[in-house]
Amino acid sequence: MMRKGFFYAVCCVLVVAVAGVAYAQFAKPGKAIAYRKAVMVLLGHHFGQIGASLGSATDRNTVAKNAGLVATLAPLAWEACMVPGTDKGDTTMASKVLKDRHGFTTAAGAFETAAAKLGTVASEGDMGAIKAQFGAVAKTCKACHGEYRSR
Amino acid sequence: MMRKGFFYAVCCVLVVAVAGVAYAQFAKPGKAIAYRKAVMVLLGHHFGQIGASLGSATDRNTVAKNAGLVATLAPLAWEACMVPGTDKGDTTMASKVLKDRHGFTTAAGAFETAAAKLGTVASEGDMGAIKAQFGAVAKTCKACHGEYRSR
Repeated sequence: MMRKGFFYAVCCVLVVAVAGVAYAQFAKPGKAIAYRKAVMVLLGHHFGQIGASLGSATDRNTVAKNAGLVATLAPLAWEACMVPGTDKGDTTMASKVLKDRHGFTTAAGAFETAAAKLGTVASEGDMGAIKAQFGAVAKTCKACHGEYRSR
Repeated sequence: MMRKGFFYAVCCVLVVAVAGVAYAQFAKPGKAIAYRKAVMVLLGHHFGQIGASLGSATDRNTVAKNAGLVATLAPLAWEACMVPGTDKGDTTMASKVLKDRHGFTTAAGAFETAAAKLGTVASEGDMGAIKAQFGAVAKTCKACHGEYRSR
């Protein structure tokens, strides 16, 4: 009986701890939606800036700066996507995110990995490699949006 | 005549170059407003996360992570504030920003400097120093908002 109680208590602590990691940042669903949208606005902007600079061999600093920001921003939005109820309201997030968390996390993780590599490649300055990795990141954006974004 | 023409051409290039640095990022005023708002949402969130973690000596990693993000985000919004016409529309930016650019840049710069120091202090882990610098950053937020934000 004691051991069962102890096991139960440990489970409760674990559940709270895991939930805490995932949701404690956001007091209300609306805050989580506003936060992840803000991340997406910045990601879209800085990724777009890279695209606009790819034609110019002189813009390596601009590309590296923007790619560094994309790599930094890349992991930020997913916790906010996991908050229950945030598939409703002022959002384009598909309900599938909350139903298929593993699939979503895998797709988001592919973007993170590709964005981190873009940050590294951009800091090295080889424009051919940057263009290739830019395309690779764009594919991960599109794949995740195709599955997990509505509209 | 030639020299006058050359001087004029150089001036034009300089004006375009400087304007390019400041505004080329934003195709439309609405894009600049959306971008700087997104930066402010993230700054508010991550600065708030530091405040929420200050009481706990075990949260040094959380504090350092959030302070690093605040330091990274701190310089991003000001170019978007300089775009002509963006004191109108869906914004709380006061028109004074565009009329008193030097004053605004100074106030924004004070925040940037304080945020960069918070990032450094947080990475060192002395909670007393972190609390002091957190307060110093908050003062620069308040000072700039008091002068350059309406509502």
